[in-house]
Amino acid sequence: MPDLKIYGVARSRAFRVLWAAKELGLEYDHVQIGFDGSNKTPEFLAVNPLGSVPVIADGDFKLFESLAINMYLAKRAGSTLYPAALEDEARTWQWSLFGATELDFPILDWARNTTVLPPEKRDPAVAAKALATLAPKLAALDKALAGRSYLLGEQFTVADLNLASVMYRLLWADLGATPAVKGWLDRCYDRPAAKEARAMRE
Amino acid sequence: MPDLKIYGVARSRAFRVLWAAKELGLEYDHVQIGFDGSNKTPEFLAVNPLGSVPVIADGDFKLFESLAINMYLAKRAGSTLYPAALEDEARTWQWSLFGATELDFPILDWARNTTVLPPEKRDPAVAAKALATLAPKLAALDKALAGRSYLLGEQFTVADLNLASVMYRLLWADLGATPAVKGWLDRCYDRPAAKEARAMRE
Repeated sequence: MPDLKIYGVARSRAFRVLWAAKELGLEYDHVQIGFDGSNKTPEFLAVNPLGSVPVIADGDFKLFESLAINMYLAKRAGSTLYPAALEDEARTWQWSLFGATELDFPILDWARNTTVLPPEKRDPAVAAKALATLAPKLAALDKALAGRSYLLGEQFTVADLNLASVMYRLLWADLGATPAVKGWLDRCYDRPAAKEARAMRE
Repeated sequence: MPDLKIYGVARSRAFRVLWAAKELGLEYDHVQIGFDGSNKTPEFLAVNPLGSVPVIADGDFKLFESLAINMYLAKRAGSTLYPAALEDEARTWQWSLFGATELDFPILDWARNTTVLPPEKRDPAVAAKALATLAPKLAALDKALAGRSYLLGEQFTVADLNLASVMYRLLWADLGATPAVKGWLDRCYDRPAAKEARAMRE
């Protein structure tokens, strides 16, 4: 049995960690914790008192926060997905935090009100407001990506994996105004590991 | 002139970086960028296209996202504030992301509607909802801190600095329900560097 356990159904933010695990070729047990009550059992709350997913157990070591988990797995694997130079490492932290703080919530607002909720529960005003919030952030990201294949240069790293996984729902958005973002997002999701992880939820 | 420039007034999230710089004993130039238009000049947008603060320039290297900046500065300084072991490093990422994604926004909602806004603009319902959102997160943090002085053990690290700096506004909150959080937050803010950084904004 692998030492690594990944808790969380693929349709949650655990998707991000499943993608990373496949990218790194890791063996793992996938524990199907969702928001159906399985995240409120005493057994699971002993793993993560927040009751949130994803969380991993790597032997006795437990970690939550999807983007932190991905950086940990990439570094632990000794993979080139985790950058060697301090400046690239810092940019990896920066883009991960940027995704979590600037993009994650408005993307979820937009997705819920365009595709996720049943049509009669969608609020077009909320979706429009979310897109307006996202526009200047995506424009800044577009500048950062112009003239390069990936966030840190020509190599795909966990910085790309983290930010692109936060932006999953934007695969259904019109990114015509930010062509560098669109090209980069497509490049990330063309990877075999991304396709495998998507197949687990779609 | 120091190579390190910290952009952002102390009353912004730049407070977090000023605290870190003082904790590490770094020399720096403090560039007073606020939200008065100084963050929208072409000169500043060339430093950070998002127009947000804080951002640093360390020679030619530029970085935004306050919590990423702090980890970079701590690691670059070779300080014990940046943990050596991978598991502790991963916990530092986890707590930084936890602060940014789970606490930062509801803390700001609570603070605006209790102390920051003029009294006639405060909405007690928003403040109460924010506290209700925070309660389970603070309870989980209380569990994590029980029986230890700091997040990673007995030593203050950038994990503490990052999370405590996100929680600055909670210095004015009643934390009686989470005594381990209260003790830890007081311990962090009793540090000379924290007092110096607070003096720049209060």
